[in-house]
Amino acid sequence: MAYTLGIDYGTNSVRALVVDCRDGGELGTCVVPYPSGTEGILLDPSQPHLARQHPGDYLFGLEKSVTGALAEAAKTPGFSADRIIGIGVDTTGSSPLPVDAHNVPLALDPRWKGNLAAQCWLWKDHTSHREAARITETAARHRPQFIAKCGNTYSSEWFWSKIWHCLATAPEVFEAAFSWVELSDYVPAVLAGVDDPRAVQRGICAAGHKALYSDEWGGLPDQEFLALLDPKLAALRDRLYAKAHDATHAAGALCPEWAARLGLPAGIPIAIGEMDVHYGAIGSGVAEGVLVKAIGTSTCDCSVVRADMPVADIPGICGIVPGAILPGFYGIEAGQSAVGDIFKWWVEGVLQGDGSTHRELTAAVSAQKPGENGLLALDWNNGNRTILVDPMLTGLILGQTLHTTRAEIYRALIEATAFGARAIIERLREYGVPIERVVCCGGIAEKNGLLMQIYADVTGCAMQVTGSSQACALGAAIAAAVLAGPEKGGYPNFPAAQKAMTSLKPVCYTPNAEAQAVYDRLYALYRQLHDAFGGVTRSADLSRVMKELLAIQQEQAR
Amino acid sequence: MAYTLGIDYGTNSVRALVVDCRDGGELGTCVVPYPSGTEGILLDPSQPHLARQHPGDYLFGLEKSVTGALAEAAKTPGFSADRIIGIGVDTTGSSPLPVDAHNVPLALDPRWKGNLAAQCWLWKDHTSHREAARITETAARHRPQFIAKCGNTYSSEWFWSKIWHCLATAPEVFEAAFSWVELSDYVPAVLAGVDDPRAVQRGICAAGHKALYSDEWGGLPDQEFLALLDPKLAALRDRLYAKAHDATHAAGALCPEWAARLGLPAGIPIAIGEMDVHYGAIGSGVAEGVLVKAIGTSTCDCSVVRADMPVADIPGICGIVPGAILPGFYGIEAGQSAVGDIFKWWVEGVLQGDGSTHRELTAAVSAQKPGENGLLALDWNNGNRTILVDPMLTGLILGQTLHTTRAEIYRALIEATAFGARAIIERLREYGVPIERVVCCGGIAEKNGLLMQIYADVTGCAMQVTGSSQACALGAAIAAAVLAGPEKGGYPNFPAAQKAMTSLKPVCYTPNAEAQAVYDRLYALYRQLHDAFGGVTRSADLSRVMKELLAIQQEQAR
Repeated sequence: MAYTLGIDYGTNSVRALVVDCRDGGELGTCVVPYPSGTEGILLDPSQPHLARQHPGDYLFGLEKSVTGALAEAAKTPGFSADRIIGIGVDTTGSSPLPVDAHNVPLALDPRWKGNLAAQCWLWKDHTSHREAARITETAARHRPQFIAKCGNTYSSEWFWSKIWHCLATAPEVFEAAFSWVELSDYVPAVLAGVDDPRAVQRGICAAGHKALYSDEWGGLPDQEFLALLDPKLAALRDRLYAKAHDATHAAGALCPEWAARLGLPAGIPIAIGEMDVHYGAIGSGVAEGVLVKAIGTSTCDCSVVRADMPVADIPGICGIVPGAILPGFYGIEAGQSAVGDIFKWWVEGVLQGDGSTHRELTAAVSAQKPGENGLLALDWNNGNRTILVDPMLTGLILGQTLHTTRAEIYRALIEATAFGARAIIERLREYGVPIERVVCCGGIAEKNGLLMQIYADVTGCAMQVTGSSQACALGAAIAAAVLAGPEKGGYPNFPAAQKAMTSLKPVCYTPNAEAQAVYDRLYALYRQLHDAFGGVTRSADLSRVMKELLAIQQEQAR
Repeated sequence: MAYTLGIDYGTNSVRALVVDCRDGGELGTCVVPYPSGTEGILLDPSQPHLARQHPGDYLFGLEKSVTGALAEAAKTPGFSADRIIGIGVDTTGSSPLPVDAHNVPLALDPRWKGNLAAQCWLWKDHTSHREAARITETAARHRPQFIAKCGNTYSSEWFWSKIWHCLATAPEVFEAAFSWVELSDYVPAVLAGVDDPRAVQRGICAAGHKALYSDEWGGLPDQEFLALLDPKLAALRDRLYAKAHDATHAAGALCPEWAARLGLPAGIPIAIGEMDVHYGAIGSGVAEGVLVKAIGTSTCDCSVVRADMPVADIPGICGIVPGAILPGFYGIEAGQSAVGDIFKWWVEGVLQGDGSTHRELTAAVSAQKPGENGLLALDWNNGNRTILVDPMLTGLILGQTLHTTRAEIYRALIEATAFGARAIIERLREYGVPIERVVCCGGIAEKNGLLMQIYADVTGCAMQVTGSSQACALGAAIAAAVLAGPEKGGYPNFPAAQKAMTSLKPVCYTPNAEAQAVYDRLYALYRQLHDAFGGVTRSADLSRVMKELLAIQQEQAR
C-alpha cells in the first residue's frame, strides 16, 4: 500500500491531504488557517487594493497541516507515514515573494519583517494596475506575441506587474531582494531544501500563465523588452530562471530537515508546484473533451488539448500554456470574474439576507420555467475575464416590471452566469478545443442543484460534480503518485493515475431539451447585450430585446 | 363673500372642497370612500385587467361628501351655503358608463345591477386591449389624423375601446344602453337634472383626449370609420353627442332636487366637467410657460400653448386638444407610466421594506453626488407612455458592481424617473411649447425633497410645489368661480381666478449648476439606452456606456 500527500495553499488557509494511491481514498486531512493579518491576509487601510501574506505563515501551516493530516491518517489500520511515496503542492497564484540569495523570504529577516512590500504579494493584490497597463501597452507595441495568449491584456495580479510595483514604490525592498519566487515554486523548494533561488525548480503553470514565459521566445521575456519597462527588471532576469517545467518533473526530494519535522521518509520525490486550479483540474479528472469548472466566488475553467495539435491563439482566453495542467497537453485557462460573488451581492449586499435567504429564493423560483421571469442580466458585476477581458464592465439587469420579485432577479443572476459559462464553452469549441462534458468542483457545484440544472440547460452539456471536495489537494497528490512511479506504488502517467484516483459524485445534470430550446433564444438575446455593451458590436439593434423577452415570458407562463 | 364648491372623483373616493373665491382659502373638505367592491373598485378574479365601479357609489358619495364639506365650512364665521356661487366637478377618465334614454346608468336598474359590463368602466380597466389595437390599426390605415395627436396609439383605457369591448363581450348590455356618458360629464349632468343623454353637456377634455373628438373633422369619428370597426358603433354615434365644450361653458344649473339634497341654492351654475389632472393643472397654476406635473404612482404632465399659435403634432405626446385644460389654449398632456410605483416596487416589492425603508434609503444617498452611484436605469417598469408610447418596454438597471447598495439603486431609480421627465420637457420644447418652470403636485412632490432636487438638477428647471394638497378639487372650484363671473363674486377669466385662488409652497428647488453639468453627461448616456432599447436608434454603439459611467463615478467620488 502506498500513499501520497497533497498540500493545497488557499487564500486563507492551507490544507494537507493524505491519499491512498490505489483509489484516491482520503485517509486524513487537516486545515490550518494562516495566523497573521485578517483571515490570513495582511491589509493596509490606506491602500484598499493591497493584499499580502506573511511567508512565515506558510511554513507554520506546512508543518501543522501535514502532521495533523498524518495523525488523522494514522487511525486507519495499515497506514504508516513510511508508506508516503511523494508530495505534491499547489498554491494560489500569481503570488510572488522576494527572497534573498539563499532562497529565504526577505520577510523572515527581522530587518524587513514589518515591511508590506517584503511579504508575499497575494494573487488578489491589485496595487499594480498602472504597471499592468504599461506592460500591456509595451508588449502590444514591441512584443505582441507575449500577450497574444492571455487575451492581449497583462493583469495587475501577475508576476511582473507586482515586482515592478515593488521597484516603483518600495525600491529598498527590490534592491534587498536577490530574486523573486512564485509561492507554488517556493514551498516545494523549501521541502527539497533548495537554498539558491536559481536552483529552484519552476513550474511552467505559473511561469507560462503569469510571467510571460514561453519556450517559443526562449523562456522569460528578453532583457531588451524588460529594459523598456525598467533596466532594473532587465537586470533581475538573470537572477530568476531560465527554464520552467511541467508536472513530469520533480521539484526535488524531501530534505532530511523537513522529513524530520513532518515525520516523513527523507528523499521521497516532490512534484513540481502548480497553481491550485490546475492541480484541481487534475483532481477533478480533466482530460481531452472534459472541461473542469471550479465554481466559487468566481470561476476558473480548465481544459486541455493535445500538444501535437495545432492550437491557434484563442481570443479572450486567459492563457494557453503547453504543459501547464497535464504534461503533453496545452493547458487552457478561462474564467468568469464573479459567480458566487454575484449571488452573495444580491442576497447579502442588497437584500441584507443570509444563507436561509439563498434557500428561500431558490425554493421560490426552482419551479419556474426558463424565460418565465422575463428578465435578462449580464454577469459583469466584477468585470468580464473571459471572453471580453475587460475589468471595466459592470452589471446589468433588464426586463423588470412592477411585479418582478427578488427571487426572479436571483434566478436571472444565476442564468446570467450560465450564459457567461456558455460564452466560454462556445469560444473554446470555435477554436478547436473539444468539450463533451463538464465536471464542476467547489461548494456551489456540490450544493446548488438549481444552478447546476440551469447550467446544463443553458450550455447543453452534461454537468457532473467531482467526487472529492478537496480536488486541488487530490490533484497535487496525484502528481506525486505519477512522479513516484508504478514501482513505488504510484502510476506511470496522469491518465492512469486519474482513472484510479479521481471519481464523480453519483448525480449528473443532463440538459432538458425543452428548457434548452428556450435558453437558446434567451442566450441569443444575452449575446446581443454582451456584444453591444462589450464593444464587439458597434452598431447594435436592441429595439427587439425587451419585446422578445416579453414574448418568451408570455409563452412560458401558459 | 363668495364661495365655490369643487368635487373631485378619484379612483377610490370622492372629495368635496369648499373654497373662498377671494384667495382660494379652503373652508371645508370631506372625503368619502366608494362603498362597493375592493377599495371602491369592482374586480373579477378571472379577469385581472378588469376594473369597474358602481355608479350608485358616485351618487352616494356626492351627497355625503358635499354635505360633509359644507358642515365643516359652516364652522367658519361668515360662511353660509347660500353664498356658494357655483360648482365644478372633475373625475378620473376615460371612465365611460352605459345609460338609458333618461341618462340613468343601466347599473341602477335592478335588471343590470349585478352585471359588470353595465357598471362604469374605470380608467384603469385594460380588458379592451384587442379593441384598442384594432382601432389603432384601422385609424392608421384610414384616418391617420385621428391618432396623430395621441402618439399614434389608441389606448385600451379609452372610450371607444371600452364600448366596443362591451359590444363584443356583453352585447346584451350594449343593446340595452341608449347611450354612453363619460363620468366627468355624467356627474355635472346629474347635478343639472339632465334626463336625456343627448342633452348632456360634454367636456372637450375627455372628448378630445379619449374619444377621438375634434372640430377639425366635425366632432366624433365619422360613421364610415366607426362602421369599419362595427356597424353598431356607427349607429351609436347619433346617440352620443355632436359638440364638446371647454371650461367657459356651463354643464347646466343646479336642479331643485339636488339643491335640496345638498343644501345649496338651486340654479347656481355647474362648470363643464374635466378630467382630474386637467382641473388639477388649473388648481396648480398652469399657464403659458408653466408645466404642471402631477407626481404619484405615475405622472401626468400638463402644459398649454395659446390656441392662436400653430402647434404641430408632437410625436409621442398623449394628446393635444384645444380647450382641454384652459379655454383659449391647446391643452397638452404627457406622462410617465410609473414613478412612485417604481420606488414602491423596489422598496416594498423587492426589499420587502416599508415607509421607514424609504426614509432610510433616502438618508443613505441624499449626500451622494450625481454619478457617484455609478448606475444608470430606465424608468420603464410599467412601459413608456411619453415619448415612446410603448407599453411593451421594461425596466433596466446598469452599472452594478459587487459593492452597489440597495440605497444606490433606489437613487438610480429616482434619477431614471428624472431623466424620463427631462425627455418629456425636451420633446415639448422641441415642438415650440414654452416651459420656464415646473409646478408639481401630489404627495411625492410635497414630501420628497431629494427627488425634487434631483428633478431640478436633471431638468435644469426650477421645481415648485403647488400650495394646495387638493389641487384637482381646487381647479374645479376655480372653474366654477369663472363661470359664476365677477358680478357674483367670481372672476372674469381663468388667469385672474388662478392668480387669486392658487398658491405655491414657499419651497423652490433650483438647479445646482455643478450637479446639472454631471447630469447632462448622465442624461446623454440615458438617451443612448433610451433610444437603443426604445427603437429610436437601430444601430447603437453602446460600447462606451459602462466605461463613461465608471469615469464619471471616479471623478465624483474624489
